[in-house]
Amino acid sequence: LLSKKNFLQHGWVMGFLQKNNSLGEEGRLAGSLSERQKNLFSCVNSDRDARFCRTETDFSNMFARDLLPAKNGEESPLSRSLWTAGTRSSTACEQVIRGSSTNSLLGWTSLGWLGSGSPLQFTYEIAPVFVLMEQLTLKKMREIIGWPSGEGDGIFSPGGAISNMYSVMIARYKYFPEVKAKGMSAAPRLVLFTSEHSHYSIKKAGAALGFGSENVVLLSTDERGRVIPADLEAKILDVKQKGYHPLFVNATAGSTVYGAFDPINEIADICEKYNMWLHVDGAWGGGLLMSRKHRHKFSGVERANSVTWNPHKMMGVPLQCSAILVREKGILAGCNSMCAGYLFQPDKQYDVSYDTGDKAIQCGRHVDIFKFWLMWKAKGTIGFEQHIDKCLDLSQYLYDKIRNREGYEMVFDGVPQHTNVCFWYIPPSLRGMEHNSKEYREKLHKVAPNIKAMMMESGTTMVGYQPQGQKVNFFRMVISNPAALQSDIDFLIDEIERLGRDL
Amino acid sequence: LLSKKNFLQHGWVMGFLQKNNSLGEEGRLAGSLSERQKNLFSCVNSDRDARFCRTETDFSNMFARDLLPAKNGEESPLSRSLWTAGTRSSTACEQVIRGSSTNSLLGWTSLGWLGSGSPLQFTYEIAPVFVLMEQLTLKKMREIIGWPSGEGDGIFSPGGAISNMYSVMIARYKYFPEVKAKGMSAAPRLVLFTSEHSHYSIKKAGAALGFGSENVVLLSTDERGRVIPADLEAKILDVKQKGYHPLFVNATAGSTVYGAFDPINEIADICEKYNMWLHVDGAWGGGLLMSRKHRHKFSGVERANSVTWNPHKMMGVPLQCSAILVREKGILAGCNSMCAGYLFQPDKQYDVSYDTGDKAIQCGRHVDIFKFWLMWKAKGTIGFEQHIDKCLDLSQYLYDKIRNREGYEMVFDGVPQHTNVCFWYIPPSLRGMEHNSKEYREKLHKVAPNIKAMMMESGTTMVGYQPQGQKVNFFRMVISNPAALQSDIDFLIDEIERLGRDL
Repeated sequence: LLSKKNFLQHGWVMGFLQKNNSLGEEGRLAGSLSERQKNLFSCVNSDRDARFCRTETDFSNMFARDLLPAKNGEESPLSRSLWTAGTRSSTACEQVIRGSSTNSLLGWTSLGWLGSGSPLQFTYEIAPVFVLMEQLTLKKMREIIGWPSGEGDGIFSPGGAISNMYSVMIARYKYFPEVKAKGMSAAPRLVLFTSEHSHYSIKKAGAALGFGSENVVLLSTDERGRVIPADLEAKILDVKQKGYHPLFVNATAGSTVYGAFDPINEIADICEKYNMWLHVDGAWGGGLLMSRKHRHKFSGVERANSVTWNPHKMMGVPLQCSAILVREKGILAGCNSMCAGYLFQPDKQYDVSYDTGDKAIQCGRHVDIFKFWLMWKAKGTIGFEQHIDKCLDLSQYLYDKIRNREGYEMVFDGVPQHTNVCFWYIPPSLRGMEHNSKEYREKLHKVAPNIKAMMMESGTTMVGYQPQGQKVNFFRMVISNPAALQSDIDFLIDEIERLGRDL
Repeated sequence: LLSKKNFLQHGWVMGFLQKNNSLGEEGRLAGSLSERQKNLFSCVNSDRDARFCRTETDFSNMFARDLLPAKNGEESPLSRSLWTAGTRSSTACEQVIRGSSTNSLLGWTSLGWLGSGSPLQFTYEIAPVFVLMEQLTLKKMREIIGWPSGEGDGIFSPGGAISNMYSVMIARYKYFPEVKAKGMSAAPRLVLFTSEHSHYSIKKAGAALGFGSENVVLLSTDERGRVIPADLEAKILDVKQKGYHPLFVNATAGSTVYGAFDPINEIADICEKYNMWLHVDGAWGGGLLMSRKHRHKFSGVERANSVTWNPHKMMGVPLQCSAILVREKGILAGCNSMCAGYLFQPDKQYDVSYDTGDKAIQCGRHVDIFKFWLMWKAKGTIGFEQHIDKCLDLSQYLYDKIRNREGYEMVFDGVPQHTNVCFWYIPPSLRGMEHNSKEYREKLHKVAPNIKAMMMESGTTMVGYQPQGQKVNFFRMVISNPAALQSDIDFLIDEIERLGRDL
């Protein structure tokens, strides 16, 4: 990840991650930082004691290579901060300023704080560096989504399901803020809409948050698994006629099985017409926002009220790393804050607007931002783009290889929108059979599970399969690792045919 | 953590973690495993293809030293499994069986699975080792709680706030299962009860899950911060008289500020009388269950319906590691399952009851179990007990040092129940003043923030403070790291006096 070669290959190309990545010092000027960004790092508590108005290290101007020993053998300041924090010899203040990422915050820094390991990311004083990294990275992600100046709200959460749950909570708070204090009985019957192909977390959120899973209406899709806007509008009208309140639409950008992208612009038109919250679940598809070639599939995303985007999926960041991004500033805190006095004291010696914890449904949070920030610094936006494009190229290679190959049938026509390639392998014994017969369907249904079981047994490879609606079990190949090769694809197809030939 | 010295110091003393930890082989017999436990590791799919009925590695019989190279220089099987998984040369099947903990599951194992990094712990086939580790560890924790045979349910979650949220969801599902499908309108107005000193996550859960924060009734506490049972009963009767439904009581075992333990037995009597769910929030206090000397503070915990216990707090496991433990088996899945066909196919080649993901509100989960399992194996139950006892001894040392010292006033009388020591430091200039005067209170309110700010500035140490109810800002010292020394306590008191002398 951090090899010199990597640094030389990828430049920083956009915004605060756009710096020239040469190893000289000239690339480290903060010239492209806005005044607002700079203020993030200097003291904004101008009415407070000047002793505390120190200038913080400008992490927007750091490179991943700052984690490596310098050429002269000395450590860089960031490296020293991150890797030496938590020793007994370092002072508490240094440790706090460093926002230690180690597990060894021995002694005093633990006093007055219940955790004993790595930092809980809920107040600026416990994890100042990570709070700032998170703010900058969320802003960058919002800029990529296309919200003006990257303004808005957001937080990293433990996974896409929780991010999607946040979106439902915020939507409810936006339209029926009284539910926070009074409960669901203070609102009319609220209805959520999502694709029949969408991730089950929307339905799960509906059940958990007190809407009821029956009030999550599933939308019909076209043959490619994309929501049909007319079906959405018809179902909204139906709900309204029953006297219920249509609140929220989830548009999936990269569905789990087909990799389908719902038409965001058409859905946004309907949401605007009926004054509804539009959420885009880009947990799986979000990475495509980094690709100039593929981001058109997200066309209209800037009209969404909230977006889920999991860098831990397509972008290869280690688990967990999921963000919920929100267009309206301050609404997450409004929705979730309980103002716990013991954590969020207003008389602290710094700007407490950095204490981001109270807008989460968690108390302490795992520090998910650091690995993402580091990877972004190391690969650059261009590196992520290359990663995404490579994966989509590979899936196109697989698609091209099998779409007209004997013994294969695609689950849907056309080039997949994401890297999901869905297909049946038809063993020779089934090829002559009537496709609509019960016997054929029953036999085909067992092919993918059988081949997968043999693959696991022989230990060569493993693939996913599932049914979908009326469709019997089919293979679903998903490529998210750009280290895969065309020869791997060839091998996989050979294996399927070797193992499935005699079924 | 894994030094030989450690292994020799601590034996395994309870249940599956109770084995003799000598370095010879005789300690590795599986003799103490119940038949049921053994079945966990052999094939229980007796009606399935015999090819898949292999005997899995018995991880209940592994030691942390199995991660170290063996004496003859060869790797142990577990070590090899954990550290070599994910290389391109290892077969997919090996990788799957190993349940790789690395970030480098290259190539084929990624195909058909949307994540690209370390394993998502949601199906047995993706993370079999971790699923089994989690099952065994949760069972062990339930045994320690005192539920018969350790039976029940549970899951690791991203923190105590989410664990507490689970408890509220399960309680609602237990008494009003129709809410899952129909929403909160299918139930009467439901009321939750928790201490005014409890963690704010109960109130947050009430708001998020659609109860409304006003339907979270705060219970009065005695001078030590413990719930007054009579107040609970009076408030239940009040709620019933209004026609609402009292659903759930949270008893805190180790409150955030005072470290107080609510009287579980008396609260359990009331919950039984009114047919309510009893949850024990032992997020902070849970570690004391490991101590023969201190676990009496949890007296009655076996009567709880659910328990939150965060090994990442008092027990020193790196973040996150929080468990929600439930007495009734199967209720988590009943509450949360949505039966996503693409993940949880019933025609898989193994017992799908190991696919624990659908009982979570998350989809993929970070693997929090491994570090805890490893630490338990390394330290042993006795090691955790020593850790806990040492921290409580240190806090008693602090308490004894200051309770009669000039310039100090304790926030509450008596030895603290947990390691929280709460006190005011009264600078000399305030010592003669009338304690109830407005001037005195205003001045004292500023002392702790000022001293803390100076500590941060001079970089020597950092402590927590907060107000509580009518009480002005006081210091709260919490010791969770047994590496602290009595001399550190002495230094802290010296620092407070040095910095606070002239205030």
